[in-house]
Amino acid sequence: MRSQTSFLFDLDGTLVDSVYQHVLAWHEAIRAEGIELAVWRIHRKIGMSGGLFTNMLLREIGVELPPDRIEKIRRGHTEAYKRVASTVKPLPGARELLVELTRVGVPWAIATSGHMESAARTLEALGVDLKRTAVVTRDEVEHAKPDPDLFLAAADKLGVPVETASVVGDSVWDMLAAQRARALGIGLLSGGYGPEELERAGAYRVYEDPQDLLDHLDEVGGRR
Amino acid sequence: MRSQTSFLFDLDGTLVDSVYQHVLAWHEAIRAEGIELAVWRIHRKIGMSGGLFTNMLLREIGVELPPDRIEKIRRGHTEAYKRVASTVKPLPGARELLVELTRVGVPWAIATSGHMESAARTLEALGVDLKRTAVVTRDEVEHAKPDPDLFLAAADKLGVPVETASVVGDSVWDMLAAQRARALGIGLLSGGYGPEELERAGAYRVYEDPQDLLDHLDEVGGRR
Repeated sequence: MRSQTSFLFDLDGTLVDSVYQHVLAWHEAIRAEGIELAVWRIHRKIGMSGGLFTNMLLREIGVELPPDRIEKIRRGHTEAYKRVASTVKPLPGARELLVELTRVGVPWAIATSGHMESAARTLEALGVDLKRTAVVTRDEVEHAKPDPDLFLAAADKLGVPVETASVVGDSVWDMLAAQRARALGIGLLSGGYGPEELERAGAYRVYEDPQDLLDHLDEVGGRR
Repeated sequence: MRSQTSFLFDLDGTLVDSVYQHVLAWHEAIRAEGIELAVWRIHRKIGMSGGLFTNMLLREIGVELPPDRIEKIRRGHTEAYKRVASTVKPLPGARELLVELTRVGVPWAIATSGHMESAARTLEALGVDLKRTAVVTRDEVEHAKPDPDLFLAAADKLGVPVETASVVGDSVWDMLAAQRARALGIGLLSGGYGPEELERAGAYRVYEDPQDLLDHLDEVGGRR
């Protein structure tokens, strides 16, 4: 018996070209609260859930904030991101990759640290039919990446054993969550991390972007 | 006889926190010319000179543009960057690092791929006195990074042999240019590259940001 691969996709930086806009939107929101934080540190933490992410960043620079100011930063990010959201496009090959997987009958799902409120528009731009696609958002799980919950829930929705799934993501947090879920990790460079960082976090293969993954789908079990 | 180290600093991403703003400004300018290019590819090429950089990016996606449209993209970037320049601050420890080097009598210079027109404001924010500091900009050399010209000219301005200098930069292009100049390369993570990328491009030591370099200055010959 041959085990069938399935794919659990991260969204921001993996299927859509939104990481840098998110990074500067967080920077703006954090600055608005009077906190100076270098932009690269935000980039290195992005992909975690908003709450976890803000706490970790602030801990790194030794700042403690009450919950209401953290909530203000989160709302500030949402507002700042909305203003640039129109510049965000699907990554090259993203739509084609999902269409191809559907065509050959390989199960796939999307698992994002974002909330459905903001993810819905992105999924629409990607041509994803929410009625026919397994999507797990931050709203449905207790812990976001690097906890494995999002990917466990996504495998569950597909009805596949998570050990046979491949998590496709652009960040170290996707790769750590993949390991904790006992799935395989596939890294994409399209979120701006280097290949070595993704490999060291557990990626068993790294591609440039969805198009590059589509071109090499046979390497990772993506054909039947 | 002990050779005295000197430091040749890159500017954007090394002393000031401006890389991500530059990246999205280039993205906006390229999109305005009707070309879709993923943001991470711009990030990976930044630190080269504007002209070289635009040509390389377009070659990578198989697009050829006449010189006037490339010039339009460059002007578009300058305009877009101006709108966000007020959010750009010195990186943590940058000012203190330069002050300390001056105090202990270690020669240092700044060598940037940018033109003086845009660099002047950044240098001012950094507290650099242009009359008393060795600064080399894109205007003064024929070839920018990854060619070694900027760092060779900077060592020349300081009157030091380039083989005894350390080039401090945040990008792979700084490290390649350092090698071609036969200087040592010191990488900083503050431009958003991963440590392994900088090491593989020749960095003999990598620090987080100017503060981290200042804290470990003894490791790289920065005290007398």
